Amino acid sequence: MKKKRIYLDYASTTPVDPRVFDYMKKYFFQKFGNPMSLHSFGREADEAIETARKQAADFFGCEKDEIIFTSGATESNNLAVKGTAIADSLRTKGSPRPHIITTSIEHSCILSACQALADRGMAEITYLPVGSDGLVRAIDIEKSLKPNTLLVSIMYVNNEIGTIQPIREVGKIIEKANKNRDRKIIFHTDATQAISYLDCRIENLGVDLLSMSAHKIYGPKGIGCLFIKKGTPIKRIQDGGGQEFNFRSGTHNVPAIAGLGKALELVETERKKVYKMVEKLRDYMISRIMKEVSGVKLNGSKIKRSPNNANFAFKDVEGEGLLLGLDLEGVAVSTGSACSSGDLRPSHVLAAIGLSDEESHGSMRITLGKYTTKQEIEYFINALKNTVSRLRKIAGK
Amino acid sequence: MKKKRIYLDYASTTPVDPRVFDYMKKYFFQKFGNPMSLHSFGREADEAIETARKQAADFFGCEKDEIIFTSGATESNNLAVKGTAIADSLRTKGSPRPHIITTSIEHSCILSACQALADRGMAEITYLPVGSDGLVRAIDIEKSLKPNTLLVSIMYVNNEIGTIQPIREVGKIIEKANKNRDRKIIFHTDATQAISYLDCRIENLGVDLLSMSAHKIYGPKGIGCLFIKKGTPIKRIQDGGGQEFNFRSGTHNVPAIAGLGKALELVETERKKVYKMVEKLRDYMISRIMKEVSGVKLNGSKIKRSPNNANFAFKDVEGEGLLLGLDLEGVAVSTGSACSSGDLRPSHVLAAIGLSDEESHGSMRITLGKYTTKQEIEYFINALKNTVSRLRKIAGK
Repeated sequence: MKKKRIYLDYASTTPVDPRVFDYMKKYFFQKFGNPMSLHSFGREADEAIETARKQAADFFGCEKDEIIFTSGATESNNLAVKGTAIADSLRTKGSPRPHIITTSIEHSCILSACQALADRGMAEITYLPVGSDGLVRAIDIEKSLKPNTLLVSIMYVNNEIGTIQPIREVGKIIEKANKNRDRKIIFHTDATQAISYLDCRIENLGVDLLSMSAHKIYGPKGIGCLFIKKGTPIKRIQDGGGQEFNFRSGTHNVPAIAGLGKALELVETERKKVYKMVEKLRDYMISRIMKEVSGVKLNGSKIKRSPNNANFAFKDVEGEGLLLGLDLEGVAVSTGSACSSGDLRPSHVLAAIGLSDEESHGSMRITLGKYTTKQEIEYFINALKNTVSRLRKIAGK
Repeated sequence: MKKKRIYLDYASTTPVDPRVFDYMKKYFFQKFGNPMSLHSFGREADEAIETARKQAADFFGCEKDEIIFTSGATESNNLAVKGTAIADSLRTKGSPRPHIITTSIEHSCILSACQALADRGMAEITYLPVGSDGLVRAIDIEKSLKPNTLLVSIMYVNNEIGTIQPIREVGKIIEKANKNRDRKIIFHTDATQAISYLDCRIENLGVDLLSMSAHKIYGPKGIGCLFIKKGTPIKRIQDGGGQEFNFRSGTHNVPAIAGLGKALELVETERKKVYKMVEKLRDYMISRIMKEVSGVKLNGSKIKRSPNNANFAFKDVEGEGLLLGLDLEGVAVSTGSACSSGDLRPSHVLAAIGLSDEESHGSMRITLGKYTTKQEIEYFINALKNTVSRLRKIAGK
């Protein structure tokens, strides 16, 4: 019998949708030109890019030239944070040093891009706390604004606990604050984990910058985009041939860009259906686990939560052991964000919502996706129950 | 009859070798995991990356952990230039300002990365001239060295005129200079156009940093690497999850990385054969064009030249018109580097080797590849002769 393989780590990465792959395929060796070339090979590659740009612009409800293709959300986030800081320092010659507001539960790429600026004396950073539900309070943002505040960067959906932040509300606070300011505060959201399930229309969010990555939405890895609202002062961080309206140089990754566009189109068409299906399975899973496993707690908000995310703290179990035990049963889950899951330090997100190191080390993230089935969830719940009790027995608990 | 389509713009980008594509394919939806994940989906993705890293290390004759995967040569070059400058400024707190030596014929991504540092007061730049053959003189480098020289960045093969720079000789000059210096000068080469044809063993070049891109060697777009010699002081420019030994964060582009490794392996195996084949066709093409087209001149060095490159200046013809005329005949060539071929300013490379604006505007680059056939070259020569005489007739010349 073929070994069962159940993937419940969709927040880490997703398989490419076969329809996306079929669409991308021809750009590897049939229509393989460089879109900057003037000849027909170049023009057909350029058409692929402009189609994808249109698909992205339609998805976000923005202009085509507000979409900048990057190598993924990490680059988009670096561009958002550093690009705005560099533009500011070119304007002010470095004084006053700009102020950036973010939260303590952002993805590591936002946190470390901010840290990199701070290390170089290029910005001062405020890391806002979150409540035990993982939510940032809009009032905290209002209170943190300073005359030199340049950027507010708040993720839309947290990658570990799935918390949905009040982006629209924050957008309104910033809009209000900007009425009395010469130099406008720029509002950025990392929407990487939100694209599949939530409304990402720019006008509904009130953001100036928005990051995303295709590989979280059944598109290819190595490609993402940054929405840059027209007129936002931002300087490119990757210099070169002047691609992407001079915001991001480097030969276009044509097949991947085509794939990103197609993936966004599919999300738009199928979102409602997938949302319902995934939420129902997730809720079923949560309720069974809460009932049938002792010493378990759901981390994060119960309400303001992405429909595909569950994150549990298990008493008297190591998350790492649980992950590996489940892996032996063919089930893939995660202990934290994939980006640092090789890292044994307790999750900065779980710490920020008030978990002890012990609770954090006993935590596990399960994220569902559009290919998740009821059968997989049933299998997983049984495997989880067996693994938890086996591990507790070994530990003498 | 199906329209003829002849691609003679291999220096701009190449089609993916079907063997590379077949190898990459499974990483899109079969083995689609995130290599940072601990479960089996992650581990099999990680294996793909480590295989590619080994293939690259074998190719360059270096250690596996000296290979850093990036989104392509533009990013690698930005990392080389800015990463060394940032590491230096973190050490010195910005004083003395580091000095960078490069040439006036580098790819735009090196030139504009240097310019970006200069604009921000983070470096002073020396742009070395080249002779009419496109060659930088080693003695000029020696004379330009200053106490605060941090980096020398010289491309291995020029993308427009195919000139092969004396990298090894420069490496020796720097090695000698470093004997008397506390702070070592870092030597970087952009080898993007050299990989397919020239010796790229690190020990034979004497470089500390080397950039390349897969899409110039029949691998996928959107992936490249930077060789970083162990101990070279360089700071990452893309912050985040700490991937790539903390030199380059962001989810690994697994299929593309796998493709890069495979493409390098194929280059190594087939280089000699491809070199001979391409050089023979290129030389045949040059000699026929020089004989059969009047008012034509070969730009760049006749000897120190990549075997796949030819670059001609045609009297009384606009390169742009020539390109479009040939495109109508189904032949794809280039007027400059693809990265700026939408740009109508005369090429900075052709200007640097002494061409007048008029000569530069009448210039055209033809670059062959491993799929180029004798028939294609014959067809191209005829199309070229017809197009040149047609255009000259229109212009009344």
